[in-house]
Amino acid sequence: MLSDDQGTVDMGCYGATDLITPNMDRLAARGVRFTQFYVGASICSPSRAALMTGRYPVHAGLATNAYGDRGLPPDQVTMAEVFKAAGYGTALFGKWHLGETPPLSPNAQGFDEFLGFKVGCIDNYSHFFYWHGPNRHDLWHNEQEHWEPGTYFSDIVVREATRFLEENRDRPFFLYLPFNLPHYPMQPERRFVRLYRDIKDPNRRRYAAFLTTLDSRVGEILDMVDALGLAENTIIVYFSDHGHSTEERAFGGGGSAGPYRGHKFTLWEGGIRVPAIISWPGHIPAGEVRNQPVMSIDLLPTLAHYCGVRLPDREIDGVDISRVVESPEAPWPHQVMHWAQGKRWAVREGKWKLVFDGGLFLADLESDPSESRNLIDQFPEVAKRLKRLHETWISQYTGGQK
Amino acid sequence: MLSDDQGTVDMGCYGATDLITPNMDRLAARGVRFTQFYVGASICSPSRAALMTGRYPVHAGLATNAYGDRGLPPDQVTMAEVFKAAGYGTALFGKWHLGETPPLSPNAQGFDEFLGFKVGCIDNYSHFFYWHGPNRHDLWHNEQEHWEPGTYFSDIVVREATRFLEENRDRPFFLYLPFNLPHYPMQPERRFVRLYRDIKDPNRRRYAAFLTTLDSRVGEILDMVDALGLAENTIIVYFSDHGHSTEERAFGGGGSAGPYRGHKFTLWEGGIRVPAIISWPGHIPAGEVRNQPVMSIDLLPTLAHYCGVRLPDREIDGVDISRVVESPEAPWPHQVMHWAQGKRWAVREGKWKLVFDGGLFLADLESDPSESRNLIDQFPEVAKRLKRLHETWISQYTGGQK
Repeated sequence: MLSDDQGTVDMGCYGATDLITPNMDRLAARGVRFTQFYVGASICSPSRAALMTGRYPVHAGLATNAYGDRGLPPDQVTMAEVFKAAGYGTALFGKWHLGETPPLSPNAQGFDEFLGFKVGCIDNYSHFFYWHGPNRHDLWHNEQEHWEPGTYFSDIVVREATRFLEENRDRPFFLYLPFNLPHYPMQPERRFVRLYRDIKDPNRRRYAAFLTTLDSRVGEILDMVDALGLAENTIIVYFSDHGHSTEERAFGGGGSAGPYRGHKFTLWEGGIRVPAIISWPGHIPAGEVRNQPVMSIDLLPTLAHYCGVRLPDREIDGVDISRVVESPEAPWPHQVMHWAQGKRWAVREGKWKLVFDGGLFLADLESDPSESRNLIDQFPEVAKRLKRLHETWISQYTGGQK
Repeated sequence: MLSDDQGTVDMGCYGATDLITPNMDRLAARGVRFTQFYVGASICSPSRAALMTGRYPVHAGLATNAYGDRGLPPDQVTMAEVFKAAGYGTALFGKWHLGETPPLSPNAQGFDEFLGFKVGCIDNYSHFFYWHGPNRHDLWHNEQEHWEPGTYFSDIVVREATRFLEENRDRPFFLYLPFNLPHYPMQPERRFVRLYRDIKDPNRRRYAAFLTTLDSRVGEILDMVDALGLAENTIIVYFSDHGHSTEERAFGGGGSAGPYRGHKFTLWEGGIRVPAIISWPGHIPAGEVRNQPVMSIDLLPTLAHYCGVRLPDREIDGVDISRVVESPEAPWPHQVMHWAQGKRWAVREGKWKLVFDGGLFLADLESDPSESRNLIDQFPEVAKRLKRLHETWISQYTGGQK
C-alpha cells in the first residue's frame, strides 16, 4: 500500500499527536517501522518508478513526472513482472502515474489486472483530471475506460482489492494498492472532518481528515486479509511516495515533516524520508523500529528474498534489507544513497548528506537531522568527496539510460 | 432557465440536426423563439449581471468575471429583488457567479433561497472548483456550505427546483435555474453518450451528450410545471448565457455558432447571439419565431410588465419587448445595442454592426450575418457614426459606475 503526499511524521506511531491513524498504527504494531526510509524521489512518478524497478529513477529511465507517452520505459522490469513470472496473481488498484499509453500501462508492465487512473491525480468522485490540458476523465479497467461517476475512488480501490484478495486467497499474489490520498484534491469523508473540529488550522484539519479517510481504507484491507486467514501468509508494506505537499492546490499544505526540513519536490529529508512499515506476522519482528537508512528500491530484492522469487538478471540498485528488518544491529545496507531530480540532487554517505538545491549544502544528519546548519565551509573535503560520488554516479546516466 | 456555453444554433429547433433536444424544442413549440437574442456579454458574469439587473454589464457594475469579493455590487437591484418586493417567493438553484462573499451572495441579492455554487464552474460530482487557486469545494445552501459529494449537480438543481415548485404552487414565485451545462467539465450522463455513438468528432459527441443531459433536466422541470397544473400560469424563459466555448478545458470545443462568426469571449455574433425561448401557454403565441433583435436585459422589464410588477425607480437599459413577443411585425425595440468587454467592444445600429477586436470591423448583418466582409472602407461614415455611438455610450461609465 502506498500513500500519496503523506508527510514524514504524519502517522500516530511516528509521533503525530493530532492525527487519528489507528489502522496504520495497527500495521506498525504487527510489523517493523522505519525511521530512515527513503523514497527514490520527492515527486510521484520517479518515486513509483524506483519502487517498481528496484532502481534509482534515472536508472529506471524516469526521472521526471509521467504524462501521456512519457512514462516508465516498457523494457524496465517491474516488481509486478517479477512476481508474475513466479506465478503470482498480480493486480494494481489505484494510481499508476507511470505512463498513459498502452505500452506504458500497468497491463503491459506485469499487472494481470488494473483498475485505477494513469495520471497524477483525479477528482475522487468524477475521476476527472483537471491539472493540465483538457478536463478529462481518467479511470480505467485494464485498457478499457471505466465509468463509475459519483463513487468515491478509494471505495473502488477497497472494493476491487478485497474482491481480488478473496479470489486469490488460495494462490500467491502481488497486490499493489497505490492510494491517491492525502494528495490534493483534499476530499476527506465528512465523518472524519467532524472528528477534527478542534484543530484550528483549516489546512491541517482538512489534511488530517483526509489522512484518516485513508487510514480507514487501510483498515478495511487489513481486516479483509485477517478475515480470509491470510495474515501470516501475507507480507504487507506501507509507505508514502514522498513528503507532504505545500502546493497551492492543496491550500499550501497541511502535512508535516516534523523536525525535518523540506517537503514534496525538495531533496531535503522532508521530501524523501517517509513513514514506512513492513509486516509479516509470525515471520518478522512485530512492534519494532529500525533506524538504519533504507530505501524503497530495497523492497523488490527484499520481497523477492522473502518469497523465494528469482530476481531478473539485470542490475538493481536496491539491496535485500531482510537483515535490517530482523535486527536493529544489522549493518547499514547502503554505504551511499543518491537522488537526482531536475537540477536538484543529493547524496548521503553515512551521517553526511550533501544537497544541491541552487547551492550546495552539507549536513551532518546525526547531529543535525533538520539540515539547519550548512557545514560546507567546515568540511570542504567531505563535501568534495560527496560531490564526486554524485558526479561519478550520475555520469552513468548522463546522455542516456545505462 | 439559463444554459452555460450553449452555442448559438445548438438546439434542434434552431436547425441543429445532430442534437437531441426534445425538451428545449417542446418549450419552443409552446412559446416564442428568437433568432436575434443577444446577451450582455460573451463571458459568464457580465452576462448574468445584465440578466439580473436589466442593465448593460458596465452599467451594472460588473464588466468582467466575478471571483471572490469581485461581483455584482450589492446596490444593484436584481430581478430577484424586484419580484421579492412584489411578494414573490424567490429562489436560485444552480450557478450564481456574481460574487462569493456574503454581501454579494444570492441571499443578499433578493433570493429567499439558494442552493448552488458561486464560482464559475464545478466538478459535477464533487462540487469542487479546480480552475484557480486551491482546489476547493463550492456548494452552498444559502450561506451554509452544503456537502453532497457524489450527487450529480444537475440532479440537485432539479430536486430543489421541483420541491420549490411544489411548495410555491399556490403563490407567485420567481425561480432562477442557471444550469452549469454544457460548460466544462464535460460530464454528460453515460446513457446520452451512447445515444451519439455515430457522431465521429469526439468533441461534438461529448458536447452533444452533455447538451442532451441538460435537455433532460429541462424536461423534468417542464414536466413538473405541467404536473402541478402551473403551465398556464408560469412564464418560462430559456436562453444561453453566451456562445459556445473553444477553451482547451472543453477540448477546444464541440458547440457551434452555425453560420455565425466567433464564440465565447468574442463579440462576434457567435459570442453574443444565443438560442432563447419565452413561453406562457394561453397568453403569448406558441410555436412562433421572432427575428427582431432583442436583448437579455429586456427580460426584467418584460417580465415585470407581464406580471404587473413595479420596476425599481432607477435607470434600466432593457425595454419591454412584449410587443415583439406578440408580433413579428412589431418594431425593433432597440435602435442601438452595445457591448463592452475588456478591450473588446461592439455596437449595433439597425443592420450595421461595428466590432472592435484588435481592429475595427464593420458588418452589414442583413447581407452578411457571418461578419465575413469588413465594410469599413466602403462605409467609413457608418463606421464613424457607430464608433461615436460607442464612445458616447461608454463615456458614461468610464471612470466609475454611473
